[in-house]
Amino acid sequence: MKRKLRMGMIGGGIGSFIGDVHRKAAAIDGMIELVCGAFSSTAEKSKRSGETLFLPPERCYGSFEEMIQAEKVLPEGERMDFVAIVTPNHMHFAPAKLALENGFHVVCDKPMTLTIEEAVELEKLVQRSGLLFALTHNYPNSPMTKQARAMVNNGELGNIRKVVVQYHQGWLSTAVEKSGQKQAAWRVDPKKSGIGGALGDIGTHAENLVEHVTGLQISELAADLGRFGQGRVLDDDGNLLLRFNNGAKGIMSFSQIATGEENSLSIKVYGEKGSLEWHQENPNALIARWLDKPKQVFTPNGNDLHPEAVAASRIPSGHPEGYLEAFANIYKNFALHLSARSEGKEEPTIQYPTVSDGVRGVKFIHVAVESDKNNASWVKMN
Amino acid sequence: MKRKLRMGMIGGGIGSFIGDVHRKAAAIDGMIELVCGAFSSTAEKSKRSGETLFLPPERCYGSFEEMIQAEKVLPEGERMDFVAIVTPNHMHFAPAKLALENGFHVVCDKPMTLTIEEAVELEKLVQRSGLLFALTHNYPNSPMTKQARAMVNNGELGNIRKVVVQYHQGWLSTAVEKSGQKQAAWRVDPKKSGIGGALGDIGTHAENLVEHVTGLQISELAADLGRFGQGRVLDDDGNLLLRFNNGAKGIMSFSQIATGEENSLSIKVYGEKGSLEWHQENPNALIARWLDKPKQVFTPNGNDLHPEAVAASRIPSGHPEGYLEAFANIYKNFALHLSARSEGKEEPTIQYPTVSDGVRGVKFIHVAVESDKNNASWVKMN
Amino acid sequence: MKRKLRMGMIGGGIGSFIGDVHRKAAAIDGMIELVCGAFSSTAEKSKRSGETLFLPPERCYGSFEEMIQAEKVLPEGERMDFVAIVTPNHMHFAPAKLALENGFHVVCDKPMTLTIEEAVELEKLVQRSGLLFALTHNYPNSPMTKQARAMVNNGELGNIRKVVVQYHQGWLSTAVEKSGQKQAAWRVDPKKSGIGGALGDIGTHAENLVEHVTGLQISELAADLGRFGQGRVLDDDGNLLLRFNNGAKGIMSFSQIATGEENSLSIKVYGEKGSLEWHQENPNALIARWLDKPKQVFTPNGNDLHPEAVAASRIPSGHPEGYLEAFANIYKNFALHLSARSEGKEEPTIQYPTVSDGVRGVKFIHVAVESDKNNASWVKMN
Amino acid sequence: MKRKLRMGMIGGGIGSFIGDVHRKAAAIDGMIELVCGAFSSTAEKSKRSGETLFLPPERCYGSFEEMIQAEKVLPEGERMDFVAIVTPNHMHFAPAKLALENGFHVVCDKPMTLTIEEAVELEKLVQRSGLLFALTHNYPNSPMTKQARAMVNNGELGNIRKVVVQYHQGWLSTAVEKSGQKQAAWRVDPKKSGIGGALGDIGTHAENLVEHVTGLQISELAADLGRFGQGRVLDDDGNLLLRFNNGAKGIMSFSQIATGEENSLSIKVYGEKGSLEWHQENPNALIARWLDKPKQVFTPNGNDLHPEAVAASRIPSGHPEGYLEAFANIYKNFALHLSARSEGKEEPTIQYPTVSDGVRGVKFIHVAVESDKNNASWVKMN
Repeated sequence: MKRKLRMGMIGGGIGSFIGDVHRKAAAIDGMIELVCGAFSSTAEKSKRSGETLFLPPERCYGSFEEMIQAEKVLPEGERMDFVAIVTPNHMHFAPAKLALENGFHVVCDKPMTLTIEEAVELEKLVQRSGLLFALTHNYPNSPMTKQARAMVNNGELGNIRKVVVQYHQGWLSTAVEKSGQKQAAWRVDPKKSGIGGALGDIGTHAENLVEHVTGLQISELAADLGRFGQGRVLDDDGNLLLRFNNGAKGIMSFSQIATGEENSLSIKVYGEKGSLEWHQENPNALIARWLDKPKQVFTPNGNDLHPEAVAASRIPSGHPEGYLEAFANIYKNFALHLSARSEGKEEPTIQYPTVSDGVRGVKFIHVAVESDKNNASWVKMN
Repeated sequence: MKRKLRMGMIGGGIGSFIGDVHRKAAAIDGMIELVCGAFSSTAEKSKRSGETLFLPPERCYGSFEEMIQAEKVLPEGERMDFVAIVTPNHMHFAPAKLALENGFHVVCDKPMTLTIEEAVELEKLVQRSGLLFALTHNYPNSPMTKQARAMVNNGELGNIRKVVVQYHQGWLSTAVEKSGQKQAAWRVDPKKSGIGGALGDIGTHAENLVEHVTGLQISELAADLGRFGQGRVLDDDGNLLLRFNNGAKGIMSFSQIATGEENSLSIKVYGEKGSLEWHQENPNALIARWLDKPKQVFTPNGNDLHPEAVAASRIPSGHPEGYLEAFANIYKNFALHLSARSEGKEEPTIQYPTVSDGVRGVKFIHVAVESDKNNASWVKMN
Repeated sequence: MKRKLRMGMIGGGIGSFIGDVHRKAAAIDGMIELVCGAFSSTAEKSKRSGETLFLPPERCYGSFEEMIQAEKVLPEGERMDFVAIVTPNHMHFAPAKLALENGFHVVCDKPMTLTIEEAVELEKLVQRSGLLFALTHNYPNSPMTKQARAMVNNGELGNIRKVVVQYHQGWLSTAVEKSGQKQAAWRVDPKKSGIGGALGDIGTHAENLVEHVTGLQISELAADLGRFGQGRVLDDDGNLLLRFNNGAKGIMSFSQIATGEENSLSIKVYGEKGSLEWHQENPNALIARWLDKPKQVFTPNGNDLHPEAVAASRIPSGHPEGYLEAFANIYKNFALHLSARSEGKEEPTIQYPTVSDGVRGVKFIHVAVESDKNNASWVKMN
Repeated sequence: MKRKLRMGMIGGGIGSFIGDVHRKAAAIDGMIELVCGAFSSTAEKSKRSGETLFLPPERCYGSFEEMIQAEKVLPEGERMDFVAIVTPNHMHFAPAKLALENGFHVVCDKPMTLTIEEAVELEKLVQRSGLLFALTHNYPNSPMTKQARAMVNNGELGNIRKVVVQYHQGWLSTAVEKSGQKQAAWRVDPKKSGIGGALGDIGTHAENLVEHVTGLQISELAADLGRFGQGRVLDDDGNLLLRFNNGAKGIMSFSQIATGEENSLSIKVYGEKGSLEWHQENPNALIARWLDKPKQVFTPNGNDLHPEAVAASRIPSGHPEGYLEAFANIYKNFALHLSARSEGKEEPTIQYPTVSDGVRGVKFIHVAVESDKNNASWVKMN
């Protein structure tokens, strides 16, 4: 019999930003139910979070180890199917590894791990175990970024020559990490965030979006990172030159000290025959420019879309979908994949970011930091 | 113990647009679970829909009467708390009435009923029973329409002088109702739609948005309706002059033959000191213009918002929320109200459209049709 | 030998808004030189204005009568070729009439006259004399409104069904006419402005733009005018229902109390196959929407334009032209016409608004005022 | 007696893009008249161009040397006051030098010269002679870039931390230079263009805009230039890292192979307290973002502007001015300066780009080319 998939969450206690996003994203399409969680560092806090989520106290655990062990021995009709890891960066690797080793599929936040070694280890574990692994890079899952990718793949732009990607936020313009802002505090702390600051937090989104939309790989880069906030050891700003494996060139700018910007992620892709432009803050428009035709604006569920883009929308054109719906597409496609497997049906092509995207992202962080240390010299990213 | 609220759905079988919207909107915030439904006109079809929604067959009913009677006798810990009515217009009144008479709270789609008499009867039933009734006019529940209303209420614009509201769609530009488009077929059929076509379908949204944002009432109107689609007996277009109870004047345009438009609902409100502009297709921006200051753009969870607007957002500024999230705000606020009542706590101020909005909407349809019959003469709307 | 055309100006003394616009517009394309003027009500003031314009004092006249008589007797190689009338509304008819009667071509500001009788008289005078007469409705002379007209004419939108036109300004939101604002003072004074306030000042622009772009005529209208500014006898706001000679319907809103709006003229034209949208404040984009293709945005000198649109641009695409350039297109096309005639060449198709547009505009004012007096009843406009 | 200033033009024959722009820009404000020209490489062609401009044949010269010598000996009331040099890059230095040496003021197109030595020589000549020299970088002369500069200067953004500048065009996406496109042909030819291709043509505009708006200097840069068009020896694309003399960092992207882009120049400036964004294709809006206030949009002649911005507009807010008007501001301010000097009045602060901007621009080209040759290593720009 068909049933909802059962999710266990690691991290995401009361007041968490991204935990709440994951829960809403998982809920929208009605295919997943949250059944348990290790929401916080103590069992008591975890149970308090669980209560607001209508979970029974016995399935609110004090640690991910406890959860994985306890759930593993529950009857098949009851135990969780997969874990969603929504902790700060330094707490991704250990639970992901343990979950995979114990037969649980994984949805994991990004950047995947602190080191390249860890990333590669997870990749091998996934390959060996055959378990599913989704990385929550949400932006490539928007209907219009799907359309962009399909148009590039389909050769509509011709050979890609230039890419411009920008991810600007302003919320670290002042020293909010010193005023008890929890989200800021761990992000500027290398123990929790890793060697990248804004680089890991949002630079990786930019990197992932570029490689996803263009189907190209960054072959080398030169990174000039900034640390503008007083006393910050991690970058809060970055300017990068990019070169791609097909000869294209590009530029990346990311910043969390771009005062007044909210979440301004955008990408422009220029090919020989046409070009595309997309802005995350206005996600329901994909602008296409052409050598010899007027500018076009594609819209979700609008005219002339590729099937991948159509599949990523839920409601008729003109009814805006946003950040949560793009995020939910990861969970939906992950759930469709897992359901097909559970029911022994043919598994669909993977339509969500995977452990390999995670490896690329962690490499990107390390390559950029190395470049920056050498005064923005070129470093390969293979 | 706190628990999720239990929803039973009337209408919304496989392929339904609005039923799916209601389910997603109810699911997002994790406070409501769908437990039963009378999704279609036969038990068999209803069960088939229910199966895709992971419902047990015994709670998929063949009619709303059957559902209400069966659920009524279930134990308190199991039976549905409220019904969501998502049928075509002619099927709102009877189930709403029966639900209220049997002690179930109601969430109902709009326009509420076919006749003013029915609307008034429901209003009285709600008052008498003390049950909760939410009408799913979703647009006033967006963070930025909440902000607009709060700014007007707070006197920031001064006395309101002029209002311009527009709701343009193009999907009925051709005779899609003749090609098996189910959504179109019932909307152009007066037996199912009532005396208003586009007027009832989208004109009422425009009316509701105007009265909600301005806090004013339309006192009289002159309506020139169009029937451009060949063979249509109901309007598919309308142009209206509006006068308000404070002396303000205004204009409304709605259309479903506005070729190429997707879901272009917008409102402009002009006061003595400032003015506001909002576009549903770009819902995360509220434009404010002033006598002596530069234009401002407010954003959800951005700077300088009223608490009502803040409460209507889920995620940080710059992460766009859309149609489903605004819709979900109705369910969220309805659920918060109902939970408070169940738990015997103080009930919050009502933050969702109610049966009274439904009465206004049905009146609006009848007044506009009467005006149109008299060559767009003025008709009072009290 | 080819030479610049010689312009004499009536009105437009120091501090005038529209006089300066006319001079700049006439100068841009280097085909016209200002040679004389009756800029003000006294010879002394006129000479002072003329001095700042580098004119010899002997050609700065104290009245239009004096100017016309004096210029008439100058040698052909010296005397003005045409007059530009840039006075307030009540001072258009007399100088236009006298100029025509004395063999001078005319460029005249709008609305053309105070009464329909005067308008018709000018129309007859033009026909009888064969002289050229341009009316400075500038908005239809923008590259993108030219493109819009050409697309409609060419049947690209199919039969037109609905038109929405809006012209919103906010500069009369407060009683600026009482604080010595000269531009405001004459506009609210029926002796100088005529029976229309905002109606004559900007409503006529909206009317002219609609009829120009669609090629249709307004056959009847219902007008609800507002007088919101304390003590104003003329309208400062209007809401209109429109019906066109092909069965299309529409709506017009104009206002000078739309607080915070600058010069927000826009038009939307909906046909059976496609629709167009244009905003004067962003004049270098024409949005086209289609039944079955993505939205397009046409740009001046961009791809796929009609020749009329190309002819109306001066510089490559992406280099914005604005209000003055659209205005200058009237002068340019008037000058090309007049030069062709002077040189005995074939005269081009008229590419500027003429005395007939002037008659329509004055009729529009009178029909709207009559409708408003009868509580917005329908009045024919033939 | 006051009079119009007399301009002689070098280059700008029939079919020239930029020559026509200069003539229109000089004409708009009615302060300058074109009296002579060396429009083309032969006297005959020059006379043919002059004829269309209504110039007497005797003042249409066959070379700039001829013109300067001939005009020099005309009586003071007749001879030109200044030259406007609108030739391709390699023909700027010689006529500028000769004009200055013969006592004529100069308006010169950019980039100013082919080499740094020539640039410095002109700078010295200007200093020595005391003559006026304007360089036609038009973009900083727009009302909104003036406002941006004033806001930065006034400390409203706080210390500047990051700058992003982009100048994207698509007209060289294909090999138009091989199809007889004259504008393209000289731009891709190092003999006429110098060592920079897109770098000199539009990169210098980006550089000039950044330094003008921020008041900062680029202290070093790393440039990765592209040559995507088959057979091109000069760059047609560039990506640059920037560092500024106050510690700010930034990024520049320019391209003439950005398919479908028209003239997309934009700048974003991020300070500690606020940030600004401006797009040349929509020049009448300056977006300001703040730490703790909603986003604002400034408009020409709108509310709360600095005097420099007000002075750069001609017409009321909402009446768009464009490329030509910004260009005309150079001529207007140059003319006001020259008139003040001629009349012996106090000379105004210089409000137009000068020979020093020219030196910076030529340095920028050479520094970027040197960096690119060394695989985008850092090169100082002092």
